[in-house]
Amino acid sequence: MTTAFIAEQEFYVRYAETDAMAIVHHASYIVYLEEARSHYARERGGSYAEFEATGHFLVVTEIQARYMAAARYGDKLRVRCWIEELKSRRITFAYEVLNATSGQSLMTATTQHICVDRAGNITTIPAAWRQWSL
Amino acid sequence: MTTAFIAEQEFYVRYAETDAMAIVHHASYIVYLEEARSHYARERGGSYAEFEATGHFLVVTEIQARYMAAARYGDKLRVRCWIEELKSRRITFAYEVLNATSGQSLMTATTQHICVDRAGNITTIPAAWRQWSL
Amino acid sequence: MTTAFIAEQEFYVRYAETDAMAIVHHASYIVYLEEARSHYARERGGSYAEFEATGHFLVVTEIQARYMAAARYGDKLRVRCWIEELKSRRITFAYEVLNATSGQSLMTATTQHICVDRAGNITTIPAAWRQWSL
Amino acid sequence: MTTAFIAEQEFYVRYAETDAMAIVHHASYIVYLEEARSHYARERGGSYAEFEATGHFLVVTEIQARYMAAARYGDKLRVRCWIEELKSRRITFAYEVLNATSGQSLMTATTQHICVDRAGNITTIPAAWRQWSL
Repeated sequence: MTTAFIAEQEFYVRYAETDAMAIVHHASYIVYLEEARSHYARERGGSYAEFEATGHFLVVTEIQARYMAAARYGDKLRVRCWIEELKSRRITFAYEVLNATSGQSLMTATTQHICVDRAGNITTIPAAWRQWSL
Repeated sequence: MTTAFIAEQEFYVRYAETDAMAIVHHASYIVYLEEARSHYARERGGSYAEFEATGHFLVVTEIQARYMAAARYGDKLRVRCWIEELKSRRITFAYEVLNATSGQSLMTATTQHICVDRAGNITTIPAAWRQWSL
Repeated sequence: MTTAFIAEQEFYVRYAETDAMAIVHHASYIVYLEEARSHYARERGGSYAEFEATGHFLVVTEIQARYMAAARYGDKLRVRCWIEELKSRRITFAYEVLNATSGQSLMTATTQHICVDRAGNITTIPAAWRQWSL
Repeated sequence: MTTAFIAEQEFYVRYAETDAMAIVHHASYIVYLEEARSHYARERGGSYAEFEATGHFLVVTEIQARYMAAARYGDKLRVRCWIEELKSRRITFAYEVLNATSGQSLMTATTQHICVDRAGNITTIPAAWRQWSL
């Protein structure tokens, strides 16, 4: 069950993101997912920087990732990101990373997050942000 | 079912591995896991560099990670790594990342890998390396 | 003395690029510079991936960097990149990283590169690429 | 003119630190230098984490780096770090990165830093830390 809204972003692989196998390193994708969340917020008219400015932080608690095919330097990637579940204090994002040229699916993932305040205590996601799931 | 052999490694958090929340970034742990696999091979008397020199590569196909508590710059971490399952062409590593001083468990993970040759075709893990599971 | 052509690229700071001082880590800029070179090549109608496909590699031999002001998560950056000097076997790129919103200059740098072949021997930059300096 | 004290640290290249040329990426060295500074402080009986806890930060203002030879995954590196100049509000570190096995020098660098307080204002390095240069 995904929400209707999917944020899509395209960008080129950076050389530093590759490794000695001449493919994009698996940890680089984890950074792509994070940037996809940032992009998602901007597309929804907010920004995660503003979210943090209100004293709320979405801490990563879980990651599940499946890698199906490799990306290489020179490839343009497309990352799709959507909210899979949004509760009062938790949120699950889902992702698909594709080769933007061929459309081949390279990787899928989900990440779970809890909302904490500056002191690190679990807190409620502000109402304005909970509307993202609608 | 874990094998008897657990490779342990301790090291300090690098400043570059932290983020604006002043904690170790979640993607940095993915690199710790990879280094734990390298360390595991060295502890077993081999090295992953030699493994690659024979034309074999362990490609990451899946990651499952759970983050329980944060690490900070200045912390010394301990990473424990063991083989959870080893089949002819696949291997699953399991991990625990702890604060080396307090012993607090910070993160657990498993990663799945398939063995491929230089051409990228799935191949059998060399017999010498399959003995790691014994 | 810069050439007429300056490649400009704008992008948002990724959260992973920040550190515990809540600013963009100084090593993250080095990756920005590399991506600026990739962008430069694309803007000139080539691509560094094609360059490598011909068996040529631009190895970094020197970096000089000056950091004047900090960037933060949420900032949009602008990176300007141009060729400062291009000889038969060497090339010097120059850069300026700015806050894209305020126009404030954050960092300037130069990087020197030699052209090597697959065997790692110094070789001549192909003529097609040497025209970039015109 | 270097001070008498040189901090040395050895470690293995991490796979994630390599790139598609199958060598250690040039930005990875910048992280090695930072870790060398952390190690330097620990060797002198302090720690940079404590330094920050007192509200002081050593911001990087300049980097000069020369890359002479490549490192690869599987290599053990040795990083040497010393203070080249220490003034009331500025410090210059110098470095050499070597292949720990062959002793070959791979890279040399210097980094300049200013001391700032939490508000980002330039301030004096605490006396206890200025003794490092003796």
